[in-house]
Amino acid sequence: MSRKLWEKNIQVDKEVERFTVGKDRELDLYLAPYDMLGSMAHITMLESIGLLTKDELQSLHAELKNMYAEAEHGNFVIEEGVEDVHSQVELMLTRKLGDIGKKIHSGRSRNDQVLLDLKLFTRARIRELVRLTRDLFEVLIDQSNRYKDILMPGYTHLQIAMPSSFGLWFAAYAESLADDLLLMQAAYKICNRNPLGSAAGYGSSFPLNRSMTTELLGFDSMNYNVVYAQMGRGKMERTVAYAMAGIAATLSKLAMDACLFNSQNFGFIQLPDSFTTGSSIMPHKKNPDVFELTRAKCNTLQGMPQQIALICNNLPSGYFRDLQIIKELFLPSFDELNDCLRMVTLMMREIKINEHILDDPKYSLLFSVEEVNRLVMDGVPFRDAYKKVGMDIEAGTFTADQTVRHTHEGSMGNLCNEKIEQLMQQTIEGFQFEKVDRAEKGLLA
Amino acid sequence: MSRKLWEKNIQVDKEVERFTVGKDRELDLYLAPYDMLGSMAHITMLESIGLLTKDELQSLHAELKNMYAEAEHGNFVIEEGVEDVHSQVELMLTRKLGDIGKKIHSGRSRNDQVLLDLKLFTRARIRELVRLTRDLFEVLIDQSNRYKDILMPGYTHLQIAMPSSFGLWFAAYAESLADDLLLMQAAYKICNRNPLGSAAGYGSSFPLNRSMTTELLGFDSMNYNVVYAQMGRGKMERTVAYAMAGIAATLSKLAMDACLFNSQNFGFIQLPDSFTTGSSIMPHKKNPDVFELTRAKCNTLQGMPQQIALICNNLPSGYFRDLQIIKELFLPSFDELNDCLRMVTLMMREIKINEHILDDPKYSLLFSVEEVNRLVMDGVPFRDAYKKVGMDIEAGTFTADQTVRHTHEGSMGNLCNEKIEQLMQQTIEGFQFEKVDRAEKGLLA
Amino acid sequence: MSRKLWEKNIQVDKEVERFTVGKDRELDLYLAPYDMLGSMAHITMLESIGLLTKDELQSLHAELKNMYAEAEHGNFVIEEGVEDVHSQVELMLTRKLGDIGKKIHSGRSRNDQVLLDLKLFTRARIRELVRLTRDLFEVLIDQSNRYKDILMPGYTHLQIAMPSSFGLWFAAYAESLADDLLLMQAAYKICNRNPLGSAAGYGSSFPLNRSMTTELLGFDSMNYNVVYAQMGRGKMERTVAYAMAGIAATLSKLAMDACLFNSQNFGFIQLPDSFTTGSSIMPHKKNPDVFELTRAKCNTLQGMPQQIALICNNLPSGYFRDLQIIKELFLPSFDELNDCLRMVTLMMREIKINEHILDDPKYSLLFSVEEVNRLVMDGVPFRDAYKKVGMDIEAGTFTADQTVRHTHEGSMGNLCNEKIEQLMQQTIEGFQFEKVDRAEKGLLA
Amino acid sequence: MSRKLWEKNIQVDKEVERFTVGKDRELDLYLAPYDMLGSMAHITMLESIGLLTKDELQSLHAELKNMYAEAEHGNFVIEEGVEDVHSQVELMLTRKLGDIGKKIHSGRSRNDQVLLDLKLFTRARIRELVRLTRDLFEVLIDQSNRYKDILMPGYTHLQIAMPSSFGLWFAAYAESLADDLLLMQAAYKICNRNPLGSAAGYGSSFPLNRSMTTELLGFDSMNYNVVYAQMGRGKMERTVAYAMAGIAATLSKLAMDACLFNSQNFGFIQLPDSFTTGSSIMPHKKNPDVFELTRAKCNTLQGMPQQIALICNNLPSGYFRDLQIIKELFLPSFDELNDCLRMVTLMMREIKINEHILDDPKYSLLFSVEEVNRLVMDGVPFRDAYKKVGMDIEAGTFTADQTVRHTHEGSMGNLCNEKIEQLMQQTIEGFQFEKVDRAEKGLLA
Repeated sequence: MSRKLWEKNIQVDKEVERFTVGKDRELDLYLAPYDMLGSMAHITMLESIGLLTKDELQSLHAELKNMYAEAEHGNFVIEEGVEDVHSQVELMLTRKLGDIGKKIHSGRSRNDQVLLDLKLFTRARIRELVRLTRDLFEVLIDQSNRYKDILMPGYTHLQIAMPSSFGLWFAAYAESLADDLLLMQAAYKICNRNPLGSAAGYGSSFPLNRSMTTELLGFDSMNYNVVYAQMGRGKMERTVAYAMAGIAATLSKLAMDACLFNSQNFGFIQLPDSFTTGSSIMPHKKNPDVFELTRAKCNTLQGMPQQIALICNNLPSGYFRDLQIIKELFLPSFDELNDCLRMVTLMMREIKINEHILDDPKYSLLFSVEEVNRLVMDGVPFRDAYKKVGMDIEAGTFTADQTVRHTHEGSMGNLCNEKIEQLMQQTIEGFQFEKVDRAEKGLLA
Repeated sequence: MSRKLWEKNIQVDKEVERFTVGKDRELDLYLAPYDMLGSMAHITMLESIGLLTKDELQSLHAELKNMYAEAEHGNFVIEEGVEDVHSQVELMLTRKLGDIGKKIHSGRSRNDQVLLDLKLFTRARIRELVRLTRDLFEVLIDQSNRYKDILMPGYTHLQIAMPSSFGLWFAAYAESLADDLLLMQAAYKICNRNPLGSAAGYGSSFPLNRSMTTELLGFDSMNYNVVYAQMGRGKMERTVAYAMAGIAATLSKLAMDACLFNSQNFGFIQLPDSFTTGSSIMPHKKNPDVFELTRAKCNTLQGMPQQIALICNNLPSGYFRDLQIIKELFLPSFDELNDCLRMVTLMMREIKINEHILDDPKYSLLFSVEEVNRLVMDGVPFRDAYKKVGMDIEAGTFTADQTVRHTHEGSMGNLCNEKIEQLMQQTIEGFQFEKVDRAEKGLLA
Repeated sequence: MSRKLWEKNIQVDKEVERFTVGKDRELDLYLAPYDMLGSMAHITMLESIGLLTKDELQSLHAELKNMYAEAEHGNFVIEEGVEDVHSQVELMLTRKLGDIGKKIHSGRSRNDQVLLDLKLFTRARIRELVRLTRDLFEVLIDQSNRYKDILMPGYTHLQIAMPSSFGLWFAAYAESLADDLLLMQAAYKICNRNPLGSAAGYGSSFPLNRSMTTELLGFDSMNYNVVYAQMGRGKMERTVAYAMAGIAATLSKLAMDACLFNSQNFGFIQLPDSFTTGSSIMPHKKNPDVFELTRAKCNTLQGMPQQIALICNNLPSGYFRDLQIIKELFLPSFDELNDCLRMVTLMMREIKINEHILDDPKYSLLFSVEEVNRLVMDGVPFRDAYKKVGMDIEAGTFTADQTVRHTHEGSMGNLCNEKIEQLMQQTIEGFQFEKVDRAEKGLLA
Repeated sequence: MSRKLWEKNIQVDKEVERFTVGKDRELDLYLAPYDMLGSMAHITMLESIGLLTKDELQSLHAELKNMYAEAEHGNFVIEEGVEDVHSQVELMLTRKLGDIGKKIHSGRSRNDQVLLDLKLFTRARIRELVRLTRDLFEVLIDQSNRYKDILMPGYTHLQIAMPSSFGLWFAAYAESLADDLLLMQAAYKICNRNPLGSAAGYGSSFPLNRSMTTELLGFDSMNYNVVYAQMGRGKMERTVAYAMAGIAATLSKLAMDACLFNSQNFGFIQLPDSFTTGSSIMPHKKNPDVFELTRAKCNTLQGMPQQIALICNNLPSGYFRDLQIIKELFLPSFDELNDCLRMVTLMMREIKINEHILDDPKYSLLFSVEEVNRLVMDGVPFRDAYKKVGMDIEAGTFTADQTVRHTHEGSMGNLCNEKIEQLMQQTIEGFQFEKVDRAEKGLLA
């Protein structure tokens, strides 16, 4: 039996087949459970417009539910010689149910099926990523609160500039993640629209009920225009890639700070020995490999939107096989980013900080601006205050009063971490993940 | 009088000065009115915490308002030898008001001032861009409605595949723009937070009231953490660049379609002669230069996020002069994208379409799938319907019934353009531009 | 027995270990034979400076030769729990030879060992890539010669412009490949310098003879400065990636042409059925999936230099673990490009061309410029000739004389393919692969 | 008189004209002298095939020579209303010589004329860039020789690792530049081929003598195939951009090192006060703005190849107006890179180094590996040596013998700078600039 159900009878050249199938069999495993979920919604709708009987629907639904459970447990396999997940599902259905198995394709094309799978996959992965981002966020806020009074130097141009604190440093990255999730939310909403019914990109002459599948799958809306629905392939991935790049940029910068602060020339933080590599002959070396790898992986992720753009740009509208290659970049990227999030969360939780950095006299000049401001607040004209401090420094008589008097919102003395937590909370609520939950549970009932 | 007010007395090497000032004097003109607006909010706050008297505030506010009006009319100039907009403003204030002029710097650093200017500039430009995007959107919807019954071939793999329509084609790009603005909205919200008060990235020991400036300037919130506020430089631009790249990708694809459809090998559309270039010796040539330039400009804009990432990535936290170079890429990019939007709107309004494309017999096979579906809906089993049509085609007896029966949502016969318009409308409302309006008017009152 | 021979005794956290080892075990299989080759040269040198005895050298050399043979046949495995190829080799040597096995590390660090492996691997892969490029080149020249008299339309702006020919079209891509190899040659030469002896990037206090290993391994020279040798990591890969991107850009453009020319709206070429995909219900569809996938893969390859730059840029000098991630991008990329070269060679060999394109009257205006030039050469002033032809076209009386009189070098009538072949030949000779051959044979003797 | 000589009579829409002309009038000034040089070669050839008389040639040549001199002195202007350099040149010729002026266009198209201008421009700019690169190279070698005995710490993972020296550090970047010029040489050779005669990309029916113009202009060969010659537009720029990115990457890394070493946390180098910025209130701050701007500019330059790829990729063969936009990126980029080279040369010449870095006890462990090696060379088995040193360190009894005994090629004690200079010398000779010199002098004679 031929397993390439829509192909011509002509024998495809072996090399051509190998080249065109590519990594699809392996990559489609990412999509398997979502393919079944999508099919359940599709057949429910088909029954409602008379293209399946109630009995057929029941049989198909039961089989798909079984396969879904297998796929969720990682037990679904694409057999040797079967080119993708869709063919495998159909093969299994026809083995069990005969010709009825083929009916799941009515009113659908491979194109909108893949589009749907990608969207269901992506929204599930975004959700996981949001959860992991929130985990890191919470560790950062905790550490910020814990170390809010520990000072460190603040740099501009890598030059010692002004007093800063670990409270500020940890929470800065927390707030960065909150903004990153705002971008992710927009990407999620662009993703969370139903492409099913667009068929090969030009719709179908069957009287499909697209509102129904939109509802069943918990989408925010449909991609109305069927030509646009097809155009979403590549665009959706690129948009989500932007948002992933946003998180990646935050992690990469945090990793760079950590590598620098871990250098003996700074000595601001220490990583537990079990988290570093080194050499017994150089016992002082605590190589921050985890941060370095995080940095590199996140920098690579920052390049993903460009990679997708290079594939898609200057292609006219309509489907092209080029789009398949995007899967190779996009599907595994969530694992990479999630892995980085998990590792950075672990590192941030276990990090040791140096509470005595400012004891080193090289940091005393940090307080020169503070002193000028203090004099100004005491009524000394700025010019005079400035001159006095400058002359004291020159004369070597300047002594730093290390008391920090920053009180305004967002400053060392008033971190506003609870405000940052509110921002995060609101953003996460805006995803409305519970709507998807309800829909998916309904489908699987 | 030295115009580099914060510099050391040491003479800076001439070449070094030229190199470091770079294009700042020219680029700062983009920022001028926003610098004044920001200063108005800052001094209002300074008065409220006792760092300015009421009279000083009034004098400074009046002068800044005058300068703002000049800048809005394009009459503000940065004088020879003055390195940037901030120095020019201070110079003009001190000329008029003496030492009071210098007080606008209290509790502020060059860093948060530039951050603020960039954000005020960007949100104004985003607003203009949203307006132009909506203009194009409306033309596309109009054309879609107007030509909703005109058929054209739909392609997959650039192979003639299924019937499509101009109604679908125009509206596909409209819906794409609606999604693009959703991403832009997230970028706008990330931009629309107040950095003022972060000073050089580590806050200030003055008792600044950051909530007050947030309110006065119509920001959604502040960038709370001062270290994060500084980190927003580069990040904000990159985020907005993502959203601009989204719109650019839509325009670029539309331009590619238009160039293809304008080729004699397609002949689907015609551009007015006054919009094309050609040669009298080759009168058939109607070169679609506008679309080609739009495509290239939009492809360049798609590269901007990567350009910014290349500058920022692997830099630790804290200010670096590197960030200045981002202005060269970012500030003029709005003009580029706006220009493309305007030109494409003009082209889409004036485009002529070929109403008789499908008369060409090479397109008759477009209807083979339709015929199969029609038979299926009439009760013929799919297999048999498929076989019959296949055999008719082989025998050369297949005749295409060009009646299109697509009725489902988003299909040729049911474009759902009003739903797409609703999406757009909701997205635009979500920007809440009126809040900014009110605030800016208040400041200028 | 601990297999991480240089690590501290502290137990590395399991998650950290998984994260840091990453894909190294899998990727190192690409490097295995080169690791052994490098070690053979290294120990030969060690013996010459008295750090190994003759007997030790012989035993080690014999074992490494065996392993090399295994690796060449794909039988080398990295055992469970062993983190990379270097540890596996040492493990196998110590199993066989005891402590002598460890001596291959004297005067060497993991850093210069990986650098060396990467360079030996890369030069071997470049060589394969050059061979495959030449194969495609030859097919293109053959097809150009074969179809040198078959005309096709030449386009500018996708508008029908001037007569062209399949002779020109095929050979254009051949000449492009010749230039691409010139860039590859520079990358090869930058790669083909010996980093061994740079140790961890700061050299060694052992009296190493780097000239000797340079000679033994057939390098053009050494990377003299040891700090620069280390800096070559990332730079070498990026440079080779530029040159690969050059070839990829040529293939991508060829693929785009082929997809366009294969569309029914052009109909210039036909691909054998066994090389396309389609559907029995749409028998006219011959989807050029191979070209589409080639285009997408080559576009991805064009992004590789940027990916590497994103990882490396803004890193100071000295080794960082970030560099490991480049291997994930770089090592498999040769397989991708080679695969594309092979497939395009196959397609170009089997492609069918349409010999009657210009029979279609829409192409008759192609000859208007020819006619003007013909009149000018016959003595008619250009203005008059131009006017006459223009008026004839307007009056509909213009008849195209399809005789092409292009005789200058590089034109349709005088393709100069033998000159292009000379360019290619010279470039390939410039690689001097035979020098490497001799050296590697010597080492394995 | 219409100045758009080849346009149709139809009035082009004003907005369309503004949009399509874009920045061409400004950018074409970069190309002006090369346009005249190219025309001189072209008319010399035209005369040789009978399309110009000797007198006409003489008159035209004399006028072009005058214009060339003006352009070389920066006095050439493109008048208001004239769209580009080619139209301006023709306008000036016809003003002086009447209709003869128009004859310079025979056998040529705007397309191959621009191609030629770009190549002549680029090879001149590459030459300037090579000269500036060599200047920096020489300063680096000088500084390396001067400070060859001054030690500094060598880092891996930003962890203090092994002794290094300023001799190594300076020369590493010199050797990097030598390799960068090897890549540039390949780009130069790909550029230095004659496109003239390819007309609009499909050649000409005039009996052009392309060998003659190749010779006259000092090209290494011609771009034989005329379709390939046209394809070179975009490809040439991208290839040169790769090579520029190579140099930029070296400068960027050097700048990053300098910024780090200039931080008070390292204190390895000092920049003259007149080369830094700072604040009198923070007298310790010496902001390395020049290095930061160099870093950012060079990082932007590293993105240029990708920008060009985004414009060109997925375009089929044949001219498109998209290519014009590349000029906006490419033409000014030489000034940017040259400027960075000049500034870094200045900085490297004036840099002050800290000769007493290793006095700080935190660097004493740098010598632990040295000590192990010393023991091994004295006959102690490696294991025992390693153990002894490890135990001494643990016991706090390890004392560093700071005598460095590195003697192998490329190490601290044996820098091989003269070898690196040889590499550089050979590479520069390989450009064969003198050939171009002779040709250009001949043309201008």
